[in-house]
Amino acid sequence: MSSTLGTLFKITTYGESHGKSIGVIVEGVPSGLYIDVDFIQSELDKRKPSKNNSFTTKRLESDTVEIHSGVFENKSTGTPIFMQINNNMHNSKDYSHIKDLYRPSHADYTYDKKYNIRDYRGGGRSSGRETASRVAGGAIAKLLLKTLDINICAYTNKIGNVVINNSNINFEDVYNNELRVSNNDDYKKCLLLLEETKKNNDSIGGIIECVVTNVPLGLGEPVFDKLDANISKALMSIGSVKGVEFGLGFEVSETLGSQSNDEFTVLDNKICKKSNNSGGVLGGISDGSDIIIRVAIKPTPSISKSQQTVNKYNENVDLNVTGRHDTIIVPRVASVIESMVAITLADALLLNLSSNIENIKKIYS
Amino acid sequence: MSSTLGTLFKITTYGESHGKSIGVIVEGVPSGLYIDVDFIQSELDKRKPSKNNSFTTKRLESDTVEIHSGVFENKSTGTPIFMQINNNMHNSKDYSHIKDLYRPSHADYTYDKKYNIRDYRGGGRSSGRETASRVAGGAIAKLLLKTLDINICAYTNKIGNVVINNSNINFEDVYNNELRVSNNDDYKKCLLLLEETKKNNDSIGGIIECVVTNVPLGLGEPVFDKLDANISKALMSIGSVKGVEFGLGFEVSETLGSQSNDEFTVLDNKICKKSNNSGGVLGGISDGSDIIIRVAIKPTPSISKSQQTVNKYNENVDLNVTGRHDTIIVPRVASVIESMVAITLADALLLNLSSNIENIKKIYS
Amino acid sequence: MSSTLGTLFKITTYGESHGKSIGVIVEGVPSGLYIDVDFIQSELDKRKPSKNNSFTTKRLESDTVEIHSGVFENKSTGTPIFMQINNNMHNSKDYSHIKDLYRPSHADYTYDKKYNIRDYRGGGRSSGRETASRVAGGAIAKLLLKTLDINICAYTNKIGNVVINNSNINFEDVYNNELRVSNNDDYKKCLLLLEETKKNNDSIGGIIECVVTNVPLGLGEPVFDKLDANISKALMSIGSVKGVEFGLGFEVSETLGSQSNDEFTVLDNKICKKSNNSGGVLGGISDGSDIIIRVAIKPTPSISKSQQTVNKYNENVDLNVTGRHDTIIVPRVASVIESMVAITLADALLLNLSSNIENIKKIYS
Amino acid sequence: MSSTLGTLFKITTYGESHGKSIGVIVEGVPSGLYIDVDFIQSELDKRKPSKNNSFTTKRLESDTVEIHSGVFENKSTGTPIFMQINNNMHNSKDYSHIKDLYRPSHADYTYDKKYNIRDYRGGGRSSGRETASRVAGGAIAKLLLKTLDINICAYTNKIGNVVINNSNINFEDVYNNELRVSNNDDYKKCLLLLEETKKNNDSIGGIIECVVTNVPLGLGEPVFDKLDANISKALMSIGSVKGVEFGLGFEVSETLGSQSNDEFTVLDNKICKKSNNSGGVLGGISDGSDIIIRVAIKPTPSISKSQQTVNKYNENVDLNVTGRHDTIIVPRVASVIESMVAITLADALLLNLSSNIENIKKIYS
Repeated sequence: MSSTLGTLFKITTYGESHGKSIGVIVEGVPSGLYIDVDFIQSELDKRKPSKNNSFTTKRLESDTVEIHSGVFENKSTGTPIFMQINNNMHNSKDYSHIKDLYRPSHADYTYDKKYNIRDYRGGGRSSGRETASRVAGGAIAKLLLKTLDINICAYTNKIGNVVINNSNINFEDVYNNELRVSNNDDYKKCLLLLEETKKNNDSIGGIIECVVTNVPLGLGEPVFDKLDANISKALMSIGSVKGVEFGLGFEVSETLGSQSNDEFTVLDNKICKKSNNSGGVLGGISDGSDIIIRVAIKPTPSISKSQQTVNKYNENVDLNVTGRHDTIIVPRVASVIESMVAITLADALLLNLSSNIENIKKIYS
Repeated sequence: MSSTLGTLFKITTYGESHGKSIGVIVEGVPSGLYIDVDFIQSELDKRKPSKNNSFTTKRLESDTVEIHSGVFENKSTGTPIFMQINNNMHNSKDYSHIKDLYRPSHADYTYDKKYNIRDYRGGGRSSGRETASRVAGGAIAKLLLKTLDINICAYTNKIGNVVINNSNINFEDVYNNELRVSNNDDYKKCLLLLEETKKNNDSIGGIIECVVTNVPLGLGEPVFDKLDANISKALMSIGSVKGVEFGLGFEVSETLGSQSNDEFTVLDNKICKKSNNSGGVLGGISDGSDIIIRVAIKPTPSISKSQQTVNKYNENVDLNVTGRHDTIIVPRVASVIESMVAITLADALLLNLSSNIENIKKIYS
Repeated sequence: MSSTLGTLFKITTYGESHGKSIGVIVEGVPSGLYIDVDFIQSELDKRKPSKNNSFTTKRLESDTVEIHSGVFENKSTGTPIFMQINNNMHNSKDYSHIKDLYRPSHADYTYDKKYNIRDYRGGGRSSGRETASRVAGGAIAKLLLKTLDINICAYTNKIGNVVINNSNINFEDVYNNELRVSNNDDYKKCLLLLEETKKNNDSIGGIIECVVTNVPLGLGEPVFDKLDANISKALMSIGSVKGVEFGLGFEVSETLGSQSNDEFTVLDNKICKKSNNSGGVLGGISDGSDIIIRVAIKPTPSISKSQQTVNKYNENVDLNVTGRHDTIIVPRVASVIESMVAITLADALLLNLSSNIENIKKIYS
Repeated sequence: MSSTLGTLFKITTYGESHGKSIGVIVEGVPSGLYIDVDFIQSELDKRKPSKNNSFTTKRLESDTVEIHSGVFENKSTGTPIFMQINNNMHNSKDYSHIKDLYRPSHADYTYDKKYNIRDYRGGGRSSGRETASRVAGGAIAKLLLKTLDINICAYTNKIGNVVINNSNINFEDVYNNELRVSNNDDYKKCLLLLEETKKNNDSIGGIIECVVTNVPLGLGEPVFDKLDANISKALMSIGSVKGVEFGLGFEVSETLGSQSNDEFTVLDNKICKKSNNSGGVLGGISDGSDIIIRVAIKPTPSISKSQQTVNKYNENVDLNVTGRHDTIIVPRVASVIESMVAITLADALLLNLSSNIENIKKIYS
């Protein structure tokens, strides 16, 4: 079991869906960073199910974050920052009906077989609730990136068969609706699709695109801690993610070299690329252009339709779950995607400091 | 710069395209493993450009591997295994024409900006030659996996617009041709496409699929060292890879939960899944079914067509590269994919040993 | 800043002396371990200043530990175990008088220069209070070691010039008095010395010896994660420790090889050593005999005598600290020493699982 | 088995006493560092048995180092630097007489029990020969430290009962004789002692002191990667080391706080300490004064006297080793000590770059 991610900027999380609390220790935050608690809380609020959103669960958690260490007079001190989020609802429900069942496409089965014991309440450690800790850690990473004007935005690219037109995207608009759809026409199409999906007691998947702007040239540590490699790991560690691609991504399989190569040119005495098919990374190192990532997210595995499954006694049983489920988790995952990208970039930023002797001399003389 | 991968089963590689040698130190190999040098050499031979293949470079390296440590009387001793491959051709060519140029979609530009110095001969550290070290390390991992009958096979899924029919694939057939195409009809189509691409002085991309059979249930360490997360990192660290997906992958975005969920059932008193849309991983832990991965590979960036680019003096220049280039690298990358998956699985296998107290007692009493 | 220790069994701590709480995330605990909360609490109680002890501070903390995750129905689940200890006294005192001062032999000066900011209340992160988190983590490690009957005991070897006679030590007696002195005669001598030291407004140092019994043969990972190397790091990371030695330790410098070598012999058909000058470790690997460690601990730097020092404005000032101070911290550090040794051994125990192929086969077949 | 040390500046070593070669991969070397191969070779030469020294073995290895990667036009490129040293003598001797024996105070026994297999030729991986790789890696670290004028010197403090007077030490003189004794009078005393020891077919131990001058303030990462903690681990990982202490070290046990505390004072408008009992580290962070370390080294375990021991068949046997042995290894270990301190400091130097936000801004703007 490993709940630590990162080399220098490092998060360690803990917490089950129905334990007393969940939380995160963030190590490696440079001292002197202004820690805006309101910003961290607003990031957590974005991950929460919207009050106006009929397509997500209504677990009534306030998700209030509390900082216990590492911050003094509103600034980071260089020591580990611990943030805690209490689980207010942790005694609210009866889970005896799924105690011995393995829900399809959940982690019940593999946890039970690996550990021989399982906190079955609300999915335990494998619950999506765990991602709140990631978002809290990601908020600290974003505060660090903001000092260099690096910006991260994740928005919906596709829900079911509705492909969102993001050609004229304005990053601020993304947060205007609970589906993270950047334009109103597509938003309406998605609403219709989700209504229908919900009526059918089903759920649906989608794709999130994430763009990072103003990335310094030089981030990423070949040959194994390449920027795209580490981002892929961070994203694929999110429960519902089934694929990650950069730039042209899988489309690259149908292109010729003369099409997918990004030619260089000099503009205003600065080197830039005439296209960005690579998605901002060359040889595992950021090339100064936007980082472009797409992430495939599976439908919520919890659906209200009856499903066949088994229990721990090797018996076939029918699973009929009542109550409310997320019709879609794609937009909520967008918050987590931004966080994981932010954490990886913050780590890359610190790792890159020692890449050449000029930097060493700049600091120590 | 980080050239170490893994926690327990760990590889550290070194080497530039035109240095004296390249090589790898493999740490964490359990003692008592039979080290079959012929097998390691055969793995390296698979990665090499085929003699009969007119679509790959003809760098005349023998790629002979030499083991210097960690093996005694043909068995691993538990100490680091060092393997070295000499670069015989390392003084053979004049690179002055690309010394100051940044080739499109190569790493020349980012290496130069990050490190302020670059071994430009043959791409230096960012050359595909580096992957031979990975294949040597991967061969040791495969020897370990073989003791548990775990098998890994990577084969071509798509080249350009030719989608390979792998519905009745026989894993042994994959290695029969240099394109790793599992059936003869599709092989011929691919040959035609490559002939045409070559005639046009161009290169082309593709998709490799990789299947792992007989994986023990329980591999993978949530929440950050999930099996799929670590495999994604390992694969995305390969130079030409632009996307990774598991099971249904990006297709999941268009499915309903009732379609993509894998229902469980009991067969012969054993729990199994009725489908494998998850690709063998649930909650980041192997579920006992086949692991299914697809990897998008970009066209070789080196093409014979003239391209616009820049030099380090911020001047626009035309790049006209003569000589032979790989028309396609997709099949050669398949070898590297198998290796990276093997290394990650070997590490997961060792990490999982301490997952429950029963295992501890089994070993220490 | 790094507050994570270990490779498989791993602790990450946070917390300042006067923050809301301190705590620890323990990763890598095998599932199925019985988690005895009363034992954990009793370990924390041992570290606390004794009520009857007039030589230690009387900070009135209850040091009550709360487990928030990783434990279900009294057993570890394999997920991270988070333990929290609230700082009840965190607003109780005025620290304005030492706000800008650098106390001699404290970390005020180096923290201020490294981070440019410092939580000066009670020493912040560099306070001895941080070690409570280590003891909580160590208690989990001890629970794991106990399942294999491994026992750790740290006791006083020397205070000032009083050398304790531990030749007939009974490990249970060690905890009978607050000075961890194993026999009553030496205990009385120490009391006298401490009375005098206290009267002189001074503090005093000492040596703790730590013995681990019933250690399995084979723990430790050469050549850098040797058992004695990792234990040394863990112990030297405790604030007041200035030296660590194994077996004969520094005395070895005056011995001949024929004296310090431990000859092997066969007893009851079992190999054992005729002496234990090596302190239970050979080549960085436990040899099955007792591990014997001695640790030098400096006097409490806070004394009531007037001292010369400086402030952050580069001015000479006199430091006159009123209030109660520890006359000695040596016995309290003994608790932390046991914990750090336990954590390192637990990690070594898990790391050793993958040392040979027989173990792998035992688990996976 | 772990042969990697460090977080950013990282060495990975391999090699057995009688394999084809030994070597080291150094990762994390900032690009642009001038790599002086002659200096690296001279460091290796210092570790070698002296030709004029009758107290060390005469294994006739040239210890010639070859750099295979990571250096281009005499400068580091930021990629891993691989250095190799061939074992010329690797087939020269018959080891059948110790094949099944466990030599007292060697690692034969623990390696055999941990791994169930052992390369018995010359001690295999546990041979002192392994340290040549450390010295090669340490030489690179020293080149980095030299750019900031940081100097490391390790010299003899004690051999048997001869305590060296180092009160007026001149660091250059240390390398004048093969015993690393800084003054001629004590050198003669040591020679006499060693002659006698040799005549008695015995070996003898000693203490090495190591001083680092001109260390930047701020190195070390509390609370677990403290500078003294990491140095202790690095030193205790050397085969023959049994104790490590900083500043006053074990003597601290007999001091009062008023004696061992280092008072601060302002000199020339700069803060400094009136004494250096702490040995240059406060709270795990370098305080700008000299780092002072002492290391206890055991006598060579190989002696010509007959010793009782056992074999792998659980039989008592007598061990009578003929041939030449080191009468003392203390001075040769001094080279390794300098190297391990250099490697740890180089890592600390790079880790400290990200400690505060001012550094980040300095590099990225």
